[in-house]
Amino acid sequence: MDPNLLRSYANVLLSAVNLQRGQCVLVRGEPVHLPFIGILAEEAYVRGARYVRYDTAESENPRLYKARVERSLEEYLDYAPRALYDPYGSILDEDWAMIVLHAPEDPDFLAALDPDRNARCVRSAARAMQPHRRRIVSGNEIAWLVAFLPTEGMASRILGLPPGPEAVEELWRILVPILRLDRPDPAAAWGEHCRDLAARAERLTALGLESLRFRGPGTDLTVGLPEGAIWLGGPERTAKGRLFFPNIPTEEVFTSPHLRRAEGRAAFTRPVLVPSVGKTVEGGWIEFRDGRAVGWGAGSGKEVLDTLLSMDEGARSLGEVALVDGSSPIFASGKTFHNILFDENAACHIALGSAFPGCLRGAEGRPEEDLPGLGLNVSMVHTDFMIGGPEVDVTGTGRDGREIRVMTGGRFEV
Amino acid sequence: MDPNLLRSYANVLLSAVNLQRGQCVLVRGEPVHLPFIGILAEEAYVRGARYVRYDTAESENPRLYKARVERSLEEYLDYAPRALYDPYGSILDEDWAMIVLHAPEDPDFLAALDPDRNARCVRSAARAMQPHRRRIVSGNEIAWLVAFLPTEGMASRILGLPPGPEAVEELWRILVPILRLDRPDPAAAWGEHCRDLAARAERLTALGLESLRFRGPGTDLTVGLPEGAIWLGGPERTAKGRLFFPNIPTEEVFTSPHLRRAEGRAAFTRPVLVPSVGKTVEGGWIEFRDGRAVGWGAGSGKEVLDTLLSMDEGARSLGEVALVDGSSPIFASGKTFHNILFDENAACHIALGSAFPGCLRGAEGRPEEDLPGLGLNVSMVHTDFMIGGPEVDVTGTGRDGREIRVMTGGRFEV
Repeated sequence: MDPNLLRSYANVLLSAVNLQRGQCVLVRGEPVHLPFIGILAEEAYVRGARYVRYDTAESENPRLYKARVERSLEEYLDYAPRALYDPYGSILDEDWAMIVLHAPEDPDFLAALDPDRNARCVRSAARAMQPHRRRIVSGNEIAWLVAFLPTEGMASRILGLPPGPEAVEELWRILVPILRLDRPDPAAAWGEHCRDLAARAERLTALGLESLRFRGPGTDLTVGLPEGAIWLGGPERTAKGRLFFPNIPTEEVFTSPHLRRAEGRAAFTRPVLVPSVGKTVEGGWIEFRDGRAVGWGAGSGKEVLDTLLSMDEGARSLGEVALVDGSSPIFASGKTFHNILFDENAACHIALGSAFPGCLRGAEGRPEEDLPGLGLNVSMVHTDFMIGGPEVDVTGTGRDGREIRVMTGGRFEV
Repeated sequence: MDPNLLRSYANVLLSAVNLQRGQCVLVRGEPVHLPFIGILAEEAYVRGARYVRYDTAESENPRLYKARVERSLEEYLDYAPRALYDPYGSILDEDWAMIVLHAPEDPDFLAALDPDRNARCVRSAARAMQPHRRRIVSGNEIAWLVAFLPTEGMASRILGLPPGPEAVEELWRILVPILRLDRPDPAAAWGEHCRDLAARAERLTALGLESLRFRGPGTDLTVGLPEGAIWLGGPERTAKGRLFFPNIPTEEVFTSPHLRRAEGRAAFTRPVLVPSVGKTVEGGWIEFRDGRAVGWGAGSGKEVLDTLLSMDEGARSLGEVALVDGSSPIFASGKTFHNILFDENAACHIALGSAFPGCLRGAEGRPEEDLPGLGLNVSMVHTDFMIGGPEVDVTGTGRDGREIRVMTGGRFEV
């Protein structure tokens, strides 16, 4: 790979977390990403980082995770060692920046594991991570970022080419415009784009919608929004007030719907590779009543939905609804990336699982047990399903009963 | 590589730490070792391990360590983050087993770094690790093991071949007998060998020597032993009383000399690659007076000694004296391994730096500040220098003044 391109991308990521002089950085990702992480570390130190630490979440070390799921005694599959999760305490206390590279070396490795044994490990890891995850992802106590990085396996899957360096080169060619690495100053281009998303989110918040309705082939879903719903998009702010971008790429504006007010049926418009299960759902649909999934199915991969929806109580209700314009360069690429960072930014989507307290006035900083009372879902999972596209229209209803056209033919009208 | 050989070696290592059902394992080593660590994890889970965790010490992640030493702002080089060292607290509390694979992907990478900046990072890491290191390595609170694993870089260095899989294959051929992997039951062979070493250590302890004198070309060194000195070799015992072997391979019996009673000059009989500096000392010597190094030199690499001996106060006094018989298969191989695990087990040696409280009656479990008063050295470093060989004789003096021939022509007489 062109080292200048990698260096440029590293700088986009460091700008996204708004790295400060004297700050430490945690980089997570699979060992296959270490050559890039080395470049990222160099750039971080040049910017004045105090320390760059590499670590893996459990399933980010595929060899060891596979060994565990395949060979561990049954009785230890629910175990999560303190030594893995305790460090997040000091990482939060010391205001580190956290960058998670989300791209498996082998996109099929999780799918090859026993689903029940994998689910037990996923659940125990999610439970152990939950208090930290809440402070990081929901509470924005520190700057965090989830970003993609091509691997041979992913490039082969996305492009249908044999795995190898050529597939990676070809994938980078597609990614360069999506990641805005073709701009004279990519970090500045991301800054400008994120300000545009933030402006749209502000307009949507100002509308004070009571509900959103998605209509298209196989879809007629009405999602209720709690009073005081806040739309977000682009930059967020840490507890200390520093701006950061939690996802690269990002094309969405989103909020958290009312957990007891989803009605109707949503058909998925794109395949979804569920990360913790490693398998793809194609042609899927979910039917909601009083906010809860009461039926679901799929052309293939229904068992993935079965596993996911039984992870915990909150896995059956919505935590997010997001709108993506058809002008998204990810949508424009015409590719399915089998990676949520891209696919969720190609189309409108809903997510089963945890809601964002930052998306409801007065909810941020409240203890978790208060959230359901405010209409916000709590769960250890959060999984996106794309339901938007050129054939799906979105209308809103204001608190005064007025209808508002939000999206028509996959394009924003607000 | 032959996967059966790797699996057999993995089982030797798991037997060495005496892995128990329900125990967790920390495996440390460079990312290049992950294929082997995957096999080790499989075998650990088959034996009933509760969890296998992979992590790196700072310099075990060469790309990130290099980025730091080369690019960090000056003011942050002494920083050691809690997130790296805190986990050892729960690892110790929960009685994990710890396996450190000690074999760099690139044996020259540390040597290419700025020595002063590297020394600052080494010192800060050693200082942060010190309380844990003391509980692990000195206190044996948990079972720990340092073991070698061939890399292309190390194989090339040892054999003088171009780096590549062929060099690794060739190195394994040399290692198979040294690692006793040619025996029908390698783990049992190590058990038997270690019992022999323990019996020799017991005989030496029973002699109650007051001092040891090494005489050979360039060497006339007398090392005083404190009253109550205990010789160790082969298995050790954890705080919970479980046997384990801290090194694979191991051919030595050793004790800790009196920190103020070394007199004379010792010439190194083999090159020493000082791990934290990554450079080799050849033709080195040290002169001691009242236990302290007062002069030193080398045919090449004197600056390595300069760096090492100024690490802290204790780096100038002895913490270990060890005897190795000429029948050692490592010595018999005729190779210099540029790796202390092998080279220290090829010849008698002394170590500058920290002593072992387990080598003195009544010292174990005493607070660190008491140790110098008992004659035991305290330091954050511990570096071995080989001073034995076929031309070096070792005599002992008993507390009654009697002379005892300990080794003649490189062979034990006790």
